[in-house]
Amino acid sequence: MNAVNSQDNHSAVSQMPLLRVAIAGATGYAGEELIRVLLQHPSIQLTYLAASAKWDKPVPLARVFPRFAGRLDVPLESLNPQRLAASCDLAFLALPHGASMDVVPALLNAGRRVIDLGGDFRLKDAATYAQWYGTPHTQSELLPQAVYGLPELSREAIARALLIANPGCYATAVILALAPALQSGLVMQEWICVDAKSGLTGAGRKAELSLAFGEMNENLWAYKVNRHPHMPEIEQALQPYAAAGKSLGLNFVPHVVPLNRGLLSTIMLHLIKPATWESVAALYGDFYRAAPFVRIRPKEEWPRVRDVQGTNYCDIAFSVDEQKQTLVVVSAIDNLGKGAAGQAVQNMNVMCGYPETAGLLA
Amino acid sequence: MNAVNSQDNHSAVSQMPLLRVAIAGATGYAGEELIRVLLQHPSIQLTYLAASAKWDKPVPLARVFPRFAGRLDVPLESLNPQRLAASCDLAFLALPHGASMDVVPALLNAGRRVIDLGGDFRLKDAATYAQWYGTPHTQSELLPQAVYGLPELSREAIARALLIANPGCYATAVILALAPALQSGLVMQEWICVDAKSGLTGAGRKAELSLAFGEMNENLWAYKVNRHPHMPEIEQALQPYAAAGKSLGLNFVPHVVPLNRGLLSTIMLHLIKPATWESVAALYGDFYRAAPFVRIRPKEEWPRVRDVQGTNYCDIAFSVDEQKQTLVVVSAIDNLGKGAAGQAVQNMNVMCGYPETAGLLA
Amino acid sequence: MNAVNSQDNHSAVSQMPLLRVAIAGATGYAGEELIRVLLQHPSIQLTYLAASAKWDKPVPLARVFPRFAGRLDVPLESLNPQRLAASCDLAFLALPHGASMDVVPALLNAGRRVIDLGGDFRLKDAATYAQWYGTPHTQSELLPQAVYGLPELSREAIARALLIANPGCYATAVILALAPALQSGLVMQEWICVDAKSGLTGAGRKAELSLAFGEMNENLWAYKVNRHPHMPEIEQALQPYAAAGKSLGLNFVPHVVPLNRGLLSTIMLHLIKPATWESVAALYGDFYRAAPFVRIRPKEEWPRVRDVQGTNYCDIAFSVDEQKQTLVVVSAIDNLGKGAAGQAVQNMNVMCGYPETAGLLA
Amino acid sequence: MNAVNSQDNHSAVSQMPLLRVAIAGATGYAGEELIRVLLQHPSIQLTYLAASAKWDKPVPLARVFPRFAGRLDVPLESLNPQRLAASCDLAFLALPHGASMDVVPALLNAGRRVIDLGGDFRLKDAATYAQWYGTPHTQSELLPQAVYGLPELSREAIARALLIANPGCYATAVILALAPALQSGLVMQEWICVDAKSGLTGAGRKAELSLAFGEMNENLWAYKVNRHPHMPEIEQALQPYAAAGKSLGLNFVPHVVPLNRGLLSTIMLHLIKPATWESVAALYGDFYRAAPFVRIRPKEEWPRVRDVQGTNYCDIAFSVDEQKQTLVVVSAIDNLGKGAAGQAVQNMNVMCGYPETAGLLA
Repeated sequence: MNAVNSQDNHSAVSQMPLLRVAIAGATGYAGEELIRVLLQHPSIQLTYLAASAKWDKPVPLARVFPRFAGRLDVPLESLNPQRLAASCDLAFLALPHGASMDVVPALLNAGRRVIDLGGDFRLKDAATYAQWYGTPHTQSELLPQAVYGLPELSREAIARALLIANPGCYATAVILALAPALQSGLVMQEWICVDAKSGLTGAGRKAELSLAFGEMNENLWAYKVNRHPHMPEIEQALQPYAAAGKSLGLNFVPHVVPLNRGLLSTIMLHLIKPATWESVAALYGDFYRAAPFVRIRPKEEWPRVRDVQGTNYCDIAFSVDEQKQTLVVVSAIDNLGKGAAGQAVQNMNVMCGYPETAGLLA
Repeated sequence: MNAVNSQDNHSAVSQMPLLRVAIAGATGYAGEELIRVLLQHPSIQLTYLAASAKWDKPVPLARVFPRFAGRLDVPLESLNPQRLAASCDLAFLALPHGASMDVVPALLNAGRRVIDLGGDFRLKDAATYAQWYGTPHTQSELLPQAVYGLPELSREAIARALLIANPGCYATAVILALAPALQSGLVMQEWICVDAKSGLTGAGRKAELSLAFGEMNENLWAYKVNRHPHMPEIEQALQPYAAAGKSLGLNFVPHVVPLNRGLLSTIMLHLIKPATWESVAALYGDFYRAAPFVRIRPKEEWPRVRDVQGTNYCDIAFSVDEQKQTLVVVSAIDNLGKGAAGQAVQNMNVMCGYPETAGLLA
Repeated sequence: MNAVNSQDNHSAVSQMPLLRVAIAGATGYAGEELIRVLLQHPSIQLTYLAASAKWDKPVPLARVFPRFAGRLDVPLESLNPQRLAASCDLAFLALPHGASMDVVPALLNAGRRVIDLGGDFRLKDAATYAQWYGTPHTQSELLPQAVYGLPELSREAIARALLIANPGCYATAVILALAPALQSGLVMQEWICVDAKSGLTGAGRKAELSLAFGEMNENLWAYKVNRHPHMPEIEQALQPYAAAGKSLGLNFVPHVVPLNRGLLSTIMLHLIKPATWESVAALYGDFYRAAPFVRIRPKEEWPRVRDVQGTNYCDIAFSVDEQKQTLVVVSAIDNLGKGAAGQAVQNMNVMCGYPETAGLLA
Repeated sequence: MNAVNSQDNHSAVSQMPLLRVAIAGATGYAGEELIRVLLQHPSIQLTYLAASAKWDKPVPLARVFPRFAGRLDVPLESLNPQRLAASCDLAFLALPHGASMDVVPALLNAGRRVIDLGGDFRLKDAATYAQWYGTPHTQSELLPQAVYGLPELSREAIARALLIANPGCYATAVILALAPALQSGLVMQEWICVDAKSGLTGAGRKAELSLAFGEMNENLWAYKVNRHPHMPEIEQALQPYAAAGKSLGLNFVPHVVPLNRGLLSTIMLHLIKPATWESVAALYGDFYRAAPFVRIRPKEEWPRVRDVQGTNYCDIAFSVDEQKQTLVVVSAIDNLGKGAAGQAVQNMNVMCGYPETAGLLA
């Protein structure tokens, strides 16, 4: 149809053999969304779905996710690293933090591409990892080759990568909102205030009292104030955009809000150069000119998470107060979309030479 | 102030010694609501709060329920039946099904009054209990003395009782909606269709995946279709209102809906005598003339759970279709109010000679 | 990819000229969902989007629905029947009840196909329409040619139709759940109890106090008890499946529940022939053998609206109680999917010879 | 009972004549909550309930708010300033901004006390009012005598006041969280970042599309970024706590979140003196020693709006990062409780010599 950005090269694509794709960690919310998105992708074939649950034999996917009844014949299996490596050309890992480390070496040795949605390969420094995740890194020799998979900032490196560290949900929203302003030298980088709000699927699919409907509905709170492990990830990714020799002074307060999917980050910055709404819009527009999934909102139209739910978009808006010398930037993503599964598929597209939006405009 | 039904006899009441009250099962939703309601009650004193958790030493109530910070100095303790019996004149038990049986004998032997919010003493027949709850009844000799605590139907028996079986939430809404119609012989009793919907606190305060916000928000489903243990309770309580020698033909389908508190029951009945909206309104009005917590709604104004949340009211409405020979009755309660803690306090008031509404008009 | 039911005939399809499609009523929830679904459809082109709002000039679609920013270049216009007829081969009408009547004649005269998502052409009898909708039917001579668009029951007639009356959301869920049981003569048709629950988008996109978040969140109520205009629609559609010469005795109580999308119908039936869960499953399985969007759930696994949200599926489950002689059937749909826009696109597919699932498996 | 802070002086209180209290604007959410709270108050009598709706004759309160059926006999009337002044000793005004100005002079002239929950008398400078509210102030001569009603900061002035400007919801949460830190000189006052999140009742009880459940559920957004009229109110109230001669540099970004009641403010501050969590806790503890409704949360236990819903509490927590030189303060209130009706009743209690917590511990 006449949609902007749609792929009309179906016949060309269909000549290529389908990429065999596996998911380890298929029973979490990110795994569920990966399946949903990959069912829309014209160039891949799901071959293996695994989870850490201990099943005697494979179970039908629809027993865990009835929404996929009649959609896909691949069963769920207990994760077996050998079978995982044998089953696929590319593996998505949507495992709890710490679990990917054990699985990645065998996959790389077998020549598979890997996209890890967890935190294990995001930080370049093993000591920083140990400090923020509370557990030592056992595969630190692989850290140099892992590419931080934010295509808007590192498309070329991703295209050449074998191991992708898919960014955290908060990190994605914050980095995309901050990179242009920092690069331009427009704002004071020693005092950056980030307040972020996430829907509940961001906390994972778990039997936990604090995640119960009766606890969280009609509720709202801050947590891990200046202690969330996405902080060093944000600082590391933004360092190249900061003024040389100066560190970033980041305050980061995440919150949970009572909705399923969606993440909003609100960033308050001190302007150190003259700016207007129009000049900032031009700056961001230039920065993201080639980025199909970043949308700049019109003046005074603030992003709503509803508008990015189920999508891979990041919507960004800002206000400039010249008198106060303040720049406020707000960005919205779907924490399971651009914040997890959508971005992972976007990374796969870049790695494998598919159109960057393939499977992602549903 | 000028509120209808308010108790202006504070000075009289305050001459009496305060009733010492304990709660076993204080960390569930019904326990939390019991504390909230009892904090409003002019004639009682909370003396002991216990839960089945294993704590080394008493923990501040506000650690579990921060809303009570600064309100109450009684700590939470691991349940100790001896201390429970020693601490109080009257005990509320808000324990999981099967757990009350073990605690009640010691309380009764010590001369304490007991109001059990669980299902252990609701069914008069131990075999029926075993069939519906899936576990044998170990205190069946106490069943005859337990009084089913629906004050609107059994105020006198409650006033004399030592052991109250506080009705289930669904049972309360359904029995109050059906009793007048059955007693009048207006409807066919062989085919009664009840569809009920409950908020999530009705399922308890538990770490369970199916109760997680991400699973239940934006969701809705039926469960235990014609197999919910409130069914035999409803049938037993309504039998005295049914035509002699004929059994009730009850269909009962409960559902969970994504809200915290509130329960709606929708009942479809076949009229076997002539009736109008006005005649049914008169019938229900007469039946509940002395019931301060049952409200009949005006014609075509259907009950909303919002209007009973945080209260002990049961709101009832109906429609009569003379051509179809149909009577539809809808009742709304707060599953934690009239469906649990509110009704339990109402029972305490009746047992102890306090005004029936004491503490319950907040 | 390896999805079941996927269309791999893209190259064949892409040789055909794209169907020009218009939407009148594009700013409501059904209009929004039509746009979302049609953006996935390989064979059509959106050419005209109109609404009843009075705009001086066309406005960007993203001003009303920011989610479509960057997706579609067609603006929103004030509805002009001439421009509508000139713009398209097929028009979807998602207008308030009563508004379609004025638009359809010109479209048919111009040779356009029409799919009306409103109630104007669903009832065959103009007097019944007037009675239930409270306004006379001004185009009653068109009623005979309108085809009730439930593809599972009338695929052939739809394939030949020029004017489709797209079923109501409640009607779709109830008819699909009841038709097999009625046709088999398994159940008493004089006393059918239907309790239905719908998410709030079913009430339309309107500035109305009763639809405000603060009024509806944490709330739940019944409305239009035995007076909802989907009742005669259900009776009309099911009459061919009922025993000859006997009318249906339908009780229908709709409710609103606090969620955006999803509809559950719970139906209690009196069995008049022997049946088991397995025999009923076989009956429904046979009836819907060729229906790609009806899924029968395994025993004791009840449909959840979450599993059909954003899809065109209708999930159905049942329980049989041989002793009680009771059959309970529960069906779940997305009120905007199979209950509105999804079904409308399914009808388009059947009318135009596209695969029935085209655009609908996203 | 044994509740902390409870008033056991009922007999003393009941000797005094009841205060006659009126509410203008009784059909909004703040009006509804005022009624609910005042029904708990031992010393007052509701005599007049009015709204701006045009009714021919008084309507029963339960027609608008069925929750009050059977609770109160006072009907709703169309607002008549003369009748208002004649009916009461003290009037609560919960009217839209701009409407109170017209009503206050007559009330003061008649010798009535007035508590205005709107914004008309909060700002001392009429020009600032006109700038932020977009309309001129017509009663600027009354501004000097209006007392800003935050009892924790101005108890003595409130006790002597005839006209109270009840603070805005955001302002209450932010001022209480900031005053001790500013007064101590602990933080840089030129760059204060406040991110606030409010439930939907904060936006009023209105028929507005943007407030519809279908628009706001599963949604989240920022609005009026650095342009909300509570900003000058916060700056005015905090000026006495700031360092002399230096202005406050406040950034303020409010958000709406999908819940009914509750407001969280998250404030990021730059420490300019050494501090620890313990020293800040001591500072806040001292500051609010005599404040029954401010609660300081234990270390690393962040306030949740659930814990203040339906109450008049403000819960405050903080984290101190000595290395970063950062102080983060989070405060939670119920926007209808401490943010509106609860605080208004607290002001009444202080004005009239009742115990400060009377009616407010339900």
